[in-house]
Amino acid sequence: MSTATPAYEALTSTWNRLHHLQHLQALAGWDHAANMPPKGNEARGAALAEMAALLHRMRTDTTLPGQLQRAEQETLDDLQRANLREMQRQWRLSNVLPESLVQRQQLARSRCEHAWRRQRPANDWAGYVANQQEVLALAREEAALLSAQTGLRKYDAMMDRFEPGMTCAQLDRVFGDVRQWLPGLIRQVMDKQSRETMIAPVGPFPQERQRALCEQVMALLGFDFQAGRLDVSTHPFCGGVPEDVRITTRFRDDDFLTSLMGTVHETGHGRYEQNLPRDLLGQPVAEARSMAVHESQSLSFEMQLGGHPGFVAQLAPLVARAFGEQPAFSAENLHRLITRVKPGCIRVDADEVTYPAHVILRYEIERPLIEGEIELEDVPALWDAKMMELLGIDSRGNYKDGPMQDVHWSAALFGYFPCYSLGAMYAAQWFASMRRALPDLDTRIAAGDLAPVFGWLRENVWQAASRWPTDELARRASGEPLNPAHFKAHLEARYLG
Amino acid sequence: MSTATPAYEALTSTWNRLHHLQHLQALAGWDHAANMPPKGNEARGAALAEMAALLHRMRTDTTLPGQLQRAEQETLDDLQRANLREMQRQWRLSNVLPESLVQRQQLARSRCEHAWRRQRPANDWAGYVANQQEVLALAREEAALLSAQTGLRKYDAMMDRFEPGMTCAQLDRVFGDVRQWLPGLIRQVMDKQSRETMIAPVGPFPQERQRALCEQVMALLGFDFQAGRLDVSTHPFCGGVPEDVRITTRFRDDDFLTSLMGTVHETGHGRYEQNLPRDLLGQPVAEARSMAVHESQSLSFEMQLGGHPGFVAQLAPLVARAFGEQPAFSAENLHRLITRVKPGCIRVDADEVTYPAHVILRYEIERPLIEGEIELEDVPALWDAKMMELLGIDSRGNYKDGPMQDVHWSAALFGYFPCYSLGAMYAAQWFASMRRALPDLDTRIAAGDLAPVFGWLRENVWQAASRWPTDELARRASGEPLNPAHFKAHLEARYLG
Repeated sequence: MSTATPAYEALTSTWNRLHHLQHLQALAGWDHAANMPPKGNEARGAALAEMAALLHRMRTDTTLPGQLQRAEQETLDDLQRANLREMQRQWRLSNVLPESLVQRQQLARSRCEHAWRRQRPANDWAGYVANQQEVLALAREEAALLSAQTGLRKYDAMMDRFEPGMTCAQLDRVFGDVRQWLPGLIRQVMDKQSRETMIAPVGPFPQERQRALCEQVMALLGFDFQAGRLDVSTHPFCGGVPEDVRITTRFRDDDFLTSLMGTVHETGHGRYEQNLPRDLLGQPVAEARSMAVHESQSLSFEMQLGGHPGFVAQLAPLVARAFGEQPAFSAENLHRLITRVKPGCIRVDADEVTYPAHVILRYEIERPLIEGEIELEDVPALWDAKMMELLGIDSRGNYKDGPMQDVHWSAALFGYFPCYSLGAMYAAQWFASMRRALPDLDTRIAAGDLAPVFGWLRENVWQAASRWPTDELARRASGEPLNPAHFKAHLEARYLG
Repeated sequence: MSTATPAYEALTSTWNRLHHLQHLQALAGWDHAANMPPKGNEARGAALAEMAALLHRMRTDTTLPGQLQRAEQETLDDLQRANLREMQRQWRLSNVLPESLVQRQQLARSRCEHAWRRQRPANDWAGYVANQQEVLALAREEAALLSAQTGLRKYDAMMDRFEPGMTCAQLDRVFGDVRQWLPGLIRQVMDKQSRETMIAPVGPFPQERQRALCEQVMALLGFDFQAGRLDVSTHPFCGGVPEDVRITTRFRDDDFLTSLMGTVHETGHGRYEQNLPRDLLGQPVAEARSMAVHESQSLSFEMQLGGHPGFVAQLAPLVARAFGEQPAFSAENLHRLITRVKPGCIRVDADEVTYPAHVILRYEIERPLIEGEIELEDVPALWDAKMMELLGIDSRGNYKDGPMQDVHWSAALFGYFPCYSLGAMYAAQWFASMRRALPDLDTRIAAGDLAPVFGWLRENVWQAASRWPTDELARRASGEPLNPAHFKAHLEARYLG
């Protein structure tokens, strides 16, 4: 078959092959977390390493740079050009680092993370720093290389791996704004909530009933069980492939809300994946836009919908049916439980009001760390000061629930944290835009009609996939780039309204 | 690193890579049957096709023939030489057929099997033959090519894919012998059993309790749950990889014995895989010897142990504990249920006494089919005559429970059926050899001590893997090659003793 775009066609076929092989990789990753018995670990590791090496060879194949250059000169439509842009981005990320650096990083990360698993419970900051030192040094090396290649400043170049186009300049503006009003807002909300009574649910909550409830709520949220499943793993995540999404959760007999709201969160990730443009799957343009946009979907589900009084009124009877009637299961009390604000040490346990404080704190520490302005020795004092300033919490000496609480730094995921809060902000921005387009949105949600929400997300986010850079996606969806005012307005309306 | 065996070393490293990639293939196959939601099918199919193509390229790499030849000249020890022999065998099986034939076969098989799924319930023999015609023609083409390459006669060459070294000459002797005494034995056993009373278990049998019972019995049988799992699929099988064995079963509320005994069967396959020589995994010499030897393990568990009165006496209290006491759950009655002999149309539902009749019938039809001595049109009359002769069953006009009952012919698995009965015969031979070595074997089994059985199988079969051809394996394990007299003695002792 002759074609006017031979280089572009060759590239799409390479990416299709990558897509097929990544399917097996993703499945094996999910199985590792959800099913695999312990003695399978070594063989699984060897199999995944073989596949990683194979994919790496394909992504660094020496014919690719020429094809990418020639495709630039071919006559492509807008969609193809967007696809080519994303191919170039992926190619760059796979090719910019020398093999030796990648190997040293893998070694250092795995050593650091492995040791962290026992150092954290032992509150062993000095031991942790000893390993983290090398991870940081290699991350700085990576940042310098990425920066030289992209022209971005170092931290921007690191962030670009997860959130293309995001910069410190923009983050400083956005987080700087949030920093102004957040501590005051937290105090106001706590003051208001201190005058409300709240009834605690009485367990135990049998796990099989929790699972059935989670599946009911996933169905309510439109998750397609013909194209995905819910399973159990220690650390909940959304895995698998767009054609077959594997969500996991974990159950505790004495608490059903954590698992339920976690499942709502992962269902948001899952529906994004399930609704990426099907006819383009396999091509980079059909992949989810970025980490912040992905998080904007999970938080649209968990926070915008999950904490919406109209949605909670739909949940309440399902909860009562699952575990039997209890005073705690009234719609009003359930809403209070779900929207309870309480500053704490631990990011992953934080509510949506205090969560940004955790992220801003980390951003303000990891940015200067990467840029060489501070050292690991400086972290505890900075952490303690910021925890007090932002959340009023005394964290001194508590390394395990302080700078050692996350796996991210051990895993060299510098530049990732901001995505969580950017996602929350985008989610608020999406819902503000939805309400402008659909003035009766809240009435419809309260009536159990979620179709307008899903329709808007499908059209503006899911189907857009990676067609546009994030800023352009936001502009098309909501008329403006990222604007944290919507997040503030959302919190004020929900928590002080 | 310099080595005296560079070609051999290169080959082992290729086979290790194949092993790693086949791990992901096996896992995806298991997941397809045990977990995958329907809409995941297309993407999974594409991913598996990509992997199959990749593995095919590796197995047909043009450097392999030279390496295989050069390795022949290198100084190898016995184990390495056995490994090289198995490499050559695998290389031959992957390289003998032209690509175009393989593709036509895949198409014809998939068309035939797909249509068979609705033709079988409709008893549509004419429709089935229309598709099966092409599958058979291509299988004959394959047989001719394999025959030319190996010097074996056509059916032997087809059987060699599953049971290396087995020939029609040997089968005619072995099955010819069984054919002499089997119909008479069946009549005698039925006559004896007609005078015994048997109490039917009363259901329902809740599936969660069935699962727990199956897992208990797997544990009793030494299955390593740190290196494997039990899951549910429509068609039970033993999949996964030696390092992580995935057994499946299916549950029916009104019957627990089928699932329980099926699980015992798959556990036999599973323990063989789990106990292949660990330090050699990845190399062909460490793979299971053959289909008949594999079946000899599942049948050692399901038939030799599963129908052993001493073992059934261990099962009985577990069954009673799972479902509550019932008169049907006495050890004696349970043993009668498990060892009940009843001729029927369906092979997969057959007991161990009538089962060989089903296999002999198929062998006597598919051998002349492959060798071009008969055509598909001749099959029904032959089938009916042999069903009457061997089992006293009138099968006329019942194609769906007759020649259309198995998937094997649609899938072109000509030469596979004999392995089932060869497996039953080897199993009887292994236990006869065990009893010679351990005169108190049956007392120990009755006392719940299965260690001698597992120890014998580990040493003589599991750890031997593919080190020797099957005949040599049998000779080392039992002092003689395949001898069906042990099978006859086993049936007579158990059913007429």
